Amino acid sequence: MGQLSEGLTQILIPVAALIGIGFALLQWFLVSKVRVSVVADRNGRDNGHKSSLLGDAELENGVRVPDAIAKCAEIQHAISVGATSFLFTEYRYLTIFMGVFGVIIFLFLGSVKGFSTKSEPCTYNEGNLCKPALANAVFSTIAFLLGTLTSVLSGFLGMKIATYANARTTLEARKGIGKAFVTAFRSGTVMGFLLAANGLLVLYVAINLFKLYYGDDWEGLYESITGYGLGGSSMALFGRVGGGIYTKAADVGADLVGKVEQNIPEDDPRNPAVIADNVGDNVGDIAGMGSDLFGSYAESSCAALFVASISSFGLNHDYTAMSYPLIISSMGIVVCLITTLFATDVFEIKYENQIEPSLKRQLLISTVLMTIGIAIVSFFALPSEFTLYNFGGSKVVKNWHLFFCVAIGLWAGLVIGYITEYFTSSAYSPVQDVADSCRTGAATNVIFGLALGYKSVIIPIFAIAAAIYVSFSLAAMYGIAVAALGMLSTIATGLAIDAYGPISDNAGGIAEMAGMGHEIRERTDALDAAGNTTAAIGKGFAIGSAALVSLALFGAYVSRAGIKTVNVLTPKVFIGLIVGAMLPYWFSAMTMKSVGSAALKMVEEVRRQFNTIPGLLEGTGKPDYANCVKISTDASLREMIPPGALVLLTPLVAGTLFGVETLAGVLAGSLVSGVQVAISASNTGGAWDNAKKYIEAGVTDHAVSLGPKGSDAHKAAVIGDTVGDPLKDTSGPSLNILIKLMAVESLVFAPFFAAHGGLIFKLI
Amino acid sequence: MGQLSEGLTQILIPVAALIGIGFALLQWFLVSKVRVSVVADRNGRDNGHKSSLLGDAELENGVRVPDAIAKCAEIQHAISVGATSFLFTEYRYLTIFMGVFGVIIFLFLGSVKGFSTKSEPCTYNEGNLCKPALANAVFSTIAFLLGTLTSVLSGFLGMKIATYANARTTLEARKGIGKAFVTAFRSGTVMGFLLAANGLLVLYVAINLFKLYYGDDWEGLYESITGYGLGGSSMALFGRVGGGIYTKAADVGADLVGKVEQNIPEDDPRNPAVIADNVGDNVGDIAGMGSDLFGSYAESSCAALFVASISSFGLNHDYTAMSYPLIISSMGIVVCLITTLFATDVFEIKYENQIEPSLKRQLLISTVLMTIGIAIVSFFALPSEFTLYNFGGSKVVKNWHLFFCVAIGLWAGLVIGYITEYFTSSAYSPVQDVADSCRTGAATNVIFGLALGYKSVIIPIFAIAAAIYVSFSLAAMYGIAVAALGMLSTIATGLAIDAYGPISDNAGGIAEMAGMGHEIRERTDALDAAGNTTAAIGKGFAIGSAALVSLALFGAYVSRAGIKTVNVLTPKVFIGLIVGAMLPYWFSAMTMKSVGSAALKMVEEVRRQFNTIPGLLEGTGKPDYANCVKISTDASLREMIPPGALVLLTPLVAGTLFGVETLAGVLAGSLVSGVQVAISASNTGGAWDNAKKYIEAGVTDHAVSLGPKGSDAHKAAVIGDTVGDPLKDTSGPSLNILIKLMAVESLVFAPFFAAHGGLIFKLI
Repeated sequence: MGQLSEGLTQILIPVAALIGIGFALLQWFLVSKVRVSVVADRNGRDNGHKSSLLGDAELENGVRVPDAIAKCAEIQHAISVGATSFLFTEYRYLTIFMGVFGVIIFLFLGSVKGFSTKSEPCTYNEGNLCKPALANAVFSTIAFLLGTLTSVLSGFLGMKIATYANARTTLEARKGIGKAFVTAFRSGTVMGFLLAANGLLVLYVAINLFKLYYGDDWEGLYESITGYGLGGSSMALFGRVGGGIYTKAADVGADLVGKVEQNIPEDDPRNPAVIADNVGDNVGDIAGMGSDLFGSYAESSCAALFVASISSFGLNHDYTAMSYPLIISSMGIVVCLITTLFATDVFEIKYENQIEPSLKRQLLISTVLMTIGIAIVSFFALPSEFTLYNFGGSKVVKNWHLFFCVAIGLWAGLVIGYITEYFTSSAYSPVQDVADSCRTGAATNVIFGLALGYKSVIIPIFAIAAAIYVSFSLAAMYGIAVAALGMLSTIATGLAIDAYGPISDNAGGIAEMAGMGHEIRERTDALDAAGNTTAAIGKGFAIGSAALVSLALFGAYVSRAGIKTVNVLTPKVFIGLIVGAMLPYWFSAMTMKSVGSAALKMVEEVRRQFNTIPGLLEGTGKPDYANCVKISTDASLREMIPPGALVLLTPLVAGTLFGVETLAGVLAGSLVSGVQVAISASNTGGAWDNAKKYIEAGVTDHAVSLGPKGSDAHKAAVIGDTVGDPLKDTSGPSLNILIKLMAVESLVFAPFFAAHGGLIFKLI
Repeated sequence: MGQLSEGLTQILIPVAALIGIGFALLQWFLVSKVRVSVVADRNGRDNGHKSSLLGDAELENGVRVPDAIAKCAEIQHAISVGATSFLFTEYRYLTIFMGVFGVIIFLFLGSVKGFSTKSEPCTYNEGNLCKPALANAVFSTIAFLLGTLTSVLSGFLGMKIATYANARTTLEARKGIGKAFVTAFRSGTVMGFLLAANGLLVLYVAINLFKLYYGDDWEGLYESITGYGLGGSSMALFGRVGGGIYTKAADVGADLVGKVEQNIPEDDPRNPAVIADNVGDNVGDIAGMGSDLFGSYAESSCAALFVASISSFGLNHDYTAMSYPLIISSMGIVVCLITTLFATDVFEIKYENQIEPSLKRQLLISTVLMTIGIAIVSFFALPSEFTLYNFGGSKVVKNWHLFFCVAIGLWAGLVIGYITEYFTSSAYSPVQDVADSCRTGAATNVIFGLALGYKSVIIPIFAIAAAIYVSFSLAAMYGIAVAALGMLSTIATGLAIDAYGPISDNAGGIAEMAGMGHEIRERTDALDAAGNTTAAIGKGFAIGSAALVSLALFGAYVSRAGIKTVNVLTPKVFIGLIVGAMLPYWFSAMTMKSVGSAALKMVEEVRRQFNTIPGLLEGTGKPDYANCVKISTDASLREMIPPGALVLLTPLVAGTLFGVETLAGVLAGSLVSGVQVAISASNTGGAWDNAKKYIEAGVTDHAVSLGPKGSDAHKAAVIGDTVGDPLKDTSGPSLNILIKLMAVESLVFAPFFAAHGGLIFKLI
């Protein structure tokens, strides 16, 4: 037993979660003090802007201040309505999916012992009686539904705060770069803390409620809890793939008709798809990323809990040690809270070039502090020595071993983040080389961009491999699971940094649309530029953690399916491996074509509105934003069914027809192949985007020699950027979900596959 | 024992090889009857063209016939000189490499038992004495050198016949499409048969000579023979990567200066790089492909022989059964000979649309006939029942099991060939869709092309997986090796079809340069169009066989290293798997950037010549073709050192530092990931190329609506084509070698790794 008592553990975890939620609400309150009320402003209260820092308080860029504020409020309202419209349509689809998939889970797991209500001898805790398989079916289904609801809540809240903060950031930019940065960053913080705290709290409550039924049967309890991870990740699939198709369809559709056919500028409010485009940023980068990372968090917790339950922690009923993953997450919330204060209160941003270092400093501070936090938790919560389940055998582990497992995951995340920044930020040579290759045209740009993406895979893979080797060697599959948790322990800070990007992006768009002054737009552009890099870092984190989480789930699946070895030298496993390695390609082919056809539908709708709504182009008619949002929503949700089906059906088909070993091969193959495709796709796209921005910004002599906007090199860069859009925002990040979801689904259905799987081989 | 006696086997194999060589020489003789002698033609003998089929015998397109023939001869001479220049420079590099690597092999293998000259107890044939490890070091080195020499010879002969046949095909096109087709196809046949027969003969002779020393120690004999595969494949690395960089550097360099800067047409003889461009086709597609497939052939034979030697065939000294792989190859030569007659003598090509079906029919006929051939060989050469080594255990196998193993490899090859054709021929919807996407610009073209490549992976992977499952289940690793041999058993026909493509391509270029008539150019264009598709099929075969060969080598390596299981659930193996899956990306990043920088060097040289040689642009000065060829050769060979080092050093580093299990993981990871990257890269590139040609040809209404040459859609298609060049001709096909070479190198060095490997883990 560790030094932390069970009673104290029972208090600490919910308290940490509530502190997180409280801190998020405080940040929300601070953001809400920036007022976007048109009526109040019209009454002369000037939005708290009495002591104007700008000389032209009454007239900005020829627009009266109250008018500009009214315009901001109007645009914000439109984006918010669009986001709500998307959410409601999405919920309709998801409710059906949740119902159907819930029934499938119940039926498959219930059938393991023929829906018997009799207690069974335990699998691991020998000599004891465990709850019937039917109970596991019921509770797994409940956990699944809880996971889906928490994921939906996370996405919804994230989108709400993001669409609430965008115009506020624009308005704060009038007071200076520092104020605007703090507003955008605080808003990101709201999402980060709400998501981390909610995920922890719901999981904690569920475990305690399930315990009322399960009592001493921890094996069954934590087996059922894995449904929580499955629920979180299946929602993330819809969020990432649907959101990814949505945002790129709207983006391409808005540009093709607006910029090319009607000759109106980007982000012009007359374009019916412009709101859909801005909604898309929130849908893809905020909600999609949020549910993706929530899924990773839920899955790594479940994987760790499951392995712990069949190790000495579970067998000895050591509640505090069992809860080690939850205590790590609780510590993470506290560490991230302190880290946030450094950005919002300790250091003040005065110049534009301080933004990116400040955000990078957040990563470093949280990593260093968390390392200390992990040491404290490992020392107090764990017994000094214990045994872990290790594929049929067991492994003696010391508490400081687990410290190293969590810490190496954490630091591998930092390495991946920094390497991603190096390959996608225009401050370094890789992106500058890609920009330079635009001199000889789009073809060389694409070639160099693809080569950059391939190259950017090398160091992250070595970092992941090192994390896997250390944690695997020290603490078997439990080590991998807590390494993943380590990488995700600073999720609140990571998400804050990530959500900051699209909020700044929207803020810039609103400044443009509302006709704000030149100085203000420069400030929002600076915020946005830093946001591009942090978005890439967020994707790097998401992929890295997905790799570790998938491996942990893979290990849990293998344990639960009763497999002792996954031997590549057997035909069953090898064909699984090679087919699994193919799945990321199949999936990417689907999602990339989907972006194309969804964009086409958007083009048709925008054309229709320009042709049928009188005075639209002249600015007297009002475009039907909601319809564009609906078109994009419907098209994206419809287009995402085939890739979604591929991911969800593969484990079911492979497990049922070919059995647990082939499925193990499929999971390993898709993991090792998918990580590479995901990293290279995200970084290639990010690099192309920033190469284009590098030429447009023209800050260095080199950049000036390639520009300006409209030059041949710039046109070549735009082609690269467009190719990169589906790679970095649709197919690349969705692959995280592919590898995680297949693994967690296999874990949940493992008892069924072990009992009834491998039909084809049984027939032969 | 089978029904075929040892004496008869000793006669049949060399006789089949000699028949193959004789048939190749006969075809060469038939091609040589087309005369390209300038003096003779000037004397009025009119090149055997007395009864002209064209009305304008004296004047074609305003050019006198003897002048056109003289021009053809001149161009052919220039290409031939260029090819020779490339070969001689390449040989200088390769001699150094061969020497250094030969010494490494000797030192590593010699050190296994401390260079002792004492006989050792056998590893598998218990109770008997085997030759010392030092002898294996010496003979492995000799076998390696034999493999390199045979590979060099194959490449050299292929290039010679191709550069000999190109102008002859052009001239025969004057008599009709049928005559031209037969000339091009016969020339391809020369290469196919010479390569298949030489590979077999050298291997057969080497085995018999080695036997003089080894006597009854078959274990040591066939262990040493594996060096032959390593030699073949390491030369193939230089051929594929160097050739790939060469051909694309010359292509891009010639186009950028000639077409863009100087405004002269493609294939214009005034362009100093035009000969390098044409040489490049022969270097990349002929010599590179030839040594690649020779490598596969040598490796699968060696893998099968090695596994057989430690199975009952070897332990019982059943010579005929041991020689089963060689007898299969002998039968393949006979079957391909019969198949060839169908194309050259049975069916006559009268119309242009008969070419592609005729070539596809070759594949089908050879596959059907070979299936019968395999049945005959399996029945007569094998005992009805025998045992095969199976990772420490043994497996009882019947002769008809082996028939199925070889046959499924053969048929999987056919499936891959046909699917490749579907995705890369403009006759089907995938390429037409890509062409259609050019309407909205280069970006959508690139997106659709990438998606097509990803999608084209699916069915080939299922075909490979099916072949692996069946052959693996029936006959363990020996089954995989003979399945690979089955896919390669019709190599003579496959190579003939493949070599036909670049020959026709060159013939078209020569027709253009020599100013031949419109009708003739239409005929060579039709030959070339079919050649594009067959080139893609050839790449599909090369990749499919590489996958099987690598797996067979992997199995042989695992056996030789004494590993019983390769368990993914151990950290050592898993980190190998994920890092191995990363290697194809690292390698592709290198090769794609290499094409860029090599092309830049070529651009500089062509510019220099245009600036310094008086009268070059006016046609009065003579360009320095040889210098461009030298620039391209030097640049490509220099640029290929880093990727070559990556491939050759990885197994040595992984095996020495991390040991045999991690290396096994690396091999499995690079295999399952590399196959996907290679197939998608080749097919994407092929599809872009043919989408461009589809728009240019304008045969259907749809194609006409996208064209003509110079339209916006066509420009977008050209960008896709340029992006695809390094994908399909450099990085994609080179990945075959990556996965094969690492596997065969691991096999050869396995005794060293088993004895001294894993230094890092030993230190910890």
